[in-house]
Amino acid sequence: MNAVDRVAIVGLGLVGGSLARDLAARGKRVLGYDADATSLDAAVRAGAVHEALDASLSGVSGADVVVIAVPVDLAPGIAAALAPHARNARLVTDVGSTKRGIVAAASGLAIAEVFVGSHPMAGDHRSGWGASRAGLFDNARVYVCPSRTASSAAVHLAQQLWRLVGGSPELLSADEHDRHVAWTSHLPHMISAALARALAGARVARSELGSGGRDVTRLAGGSTSLWTAIASHNRDEIVPALAGIGAELSQLQDALERGDDDRVNAWLSDARGWFEAS
Amino acid sequence: MNAVDRVAIVGLGLVGGSLARDLAARGKRVLGYDADATSLDAAVRAGAVHEALDASLSGVSGADVVVIAVPVDLAPGIAAALAPHARNARLVTDVGSTKRGIVAAASGLAIAEVFVGSHPMAGDHRSGWGASRAGLFDNARVYVCPSRTASSAAVHLAQQLWRLVGGSPELLSADEHDRHVAWTSHLPHMISAALARALAGARVARSELGSGGRDVTRLAGGSTSLWTAIASHNRDEIVPALAGIGAELSQLQDALERGDDDRVNAWLSDARGWFEAS
Repeated sequence: MNAVDRVAIVGLGLVGGSLARDLAARGKRVLGYDADATSLDAAVRAGAVHEALDASLSGVSGADVVVIAVPVDLAPGIAAALAPHARNARLVTDVGSTKRGIVAAASGLAIAEVFVGSHPMAGDHRSGWGASRAGLFDNARVYVCPSRTASSAAVHLAQQLWRLVGGSPELLSADEHDRHVAWTSHLPHMISAALARALAGARVARSELGSGGRDVTRLAGGSTSLWTAIASHNRDEIVPALAGIGAELSQLQDALERGDDDRVNAWLSDARGWFEAS
Repeated sequence: MNAVDRVAIVGLGLVGGSLARDLAARGKRVLGYDADATSLDAAVRAGAVHEALDASLSGVSGADVVVIAVPVDLAPGIAAALAPHARNARLVTDVGSTKRGIVAAASGLAIAEVFVGSHPMAGDHRSGWGASRAGLFDNARVYVCPSRTASSAAVHLAQQLWRLVGGSPELLSADEHDRHVAWTSHLPHMISAALARALAGARVARSELGSGGRDVTRLAGGSTSLWTAIASHNRDEIVPALAGIGAELSQLQDALERGDDDRVNAWLSDARGWFEAS
């Protein structure tokens, strides 16, 4: 009765496509849509999508779980478009990197009682169906953020969905989520991009870096539109995080300018202490 | 006549130990010393060192190539200590991450004509004999920085040494080297440590990060003493690099505070352009 059975996925990129693959592999029926017809065709041919939906999204009426897997700036519009059709859904969720906006938007729609936000901490700097793969969510933490209007059955089903594909769901509020990922995900991305920009300015190519430098700059290759939307949605939390790292860099710069090796050592030692502790 | 045959390695950590392993595996005779007797014993037992030297380093007289593989703050002292004994050496080199200091120091010693600085771009955040391994230099760029006093035969032999273990030697002056690695190696390290410190301040553990954040913070686990010495030696080049990244972060912070998504998009787009180009 409460099992995940027929899942509609709107957006077959890295996250949506990987979820479709995993659900299909577990014998679930997957209904899929992507604005890019080539991706949708490829997902059907790969057996990850059993039934292609059209742009009206009216076909989500056939699903008991609906997953919105599009960039965060598009998710509220998609939620509004599919809400009238999701009458049989016991869960509507999304996969975006910010949660306040979509949770608030969904609370005002016909899906208010069944909407629960999700954010799987999986994926990398690549995007699109071509980057999707089986097993993406294995051992991945998945934040599950209920709206105030969500039923406990919907929350339970969201946790069940992510456990089914190997993830570890963790409940927290949309506010807590957005503050947390500003540090754990958005700040690392922006730092990586800032280093990329500084190196570009110094005319240093990525191929000139060692493995350490390549690791630090890997996130800079992420989708520009996706990350612009994330930054815009979560700027209230990202700005203080940027200020925090700016203060750390200033401290180091000051210690170096004064030739204060003891302070440089303490600065590096605290960083290493954090690394070793976790 | 000109081949690498008997190599003395002073310091059997990640770099020195890995070099010993590779040279021994290629049939070279390896003389080794490490201030830590346990590491020296382990290297002998592993067959990476055929002959253990004592702390006087007088035994380097038996080597035609001498490699100083200790942290950059200790290298000038080791060079001075072994110089009187290196009378049969056709090459004395080092492996440190900064080159100006050691190249200048060696130019004033009895080894002036045979000293050529080296910096293999290999290794990771770990250190010590326990982290050493065969094949560390496979396809690694190795900067080779002759002093003004070095003979061309010594420069040639340094290139030969690194090619022998799979590296790609690249000649440049010590000044050029130190400016270049401030950007390619030292800045990424400091950025990684700054992020670690900011996350520590926000009480976020490394285990809470996704794979991207873990990559960005990996370098923060590097040896504190090693990196304090590097930062101290190369602070004239590192400070402008830190200022460069500080300016990039300020630009982003400003665009976010103004809610200027177009500027955020352009900022991220340039970072991605650099990533894609290389």
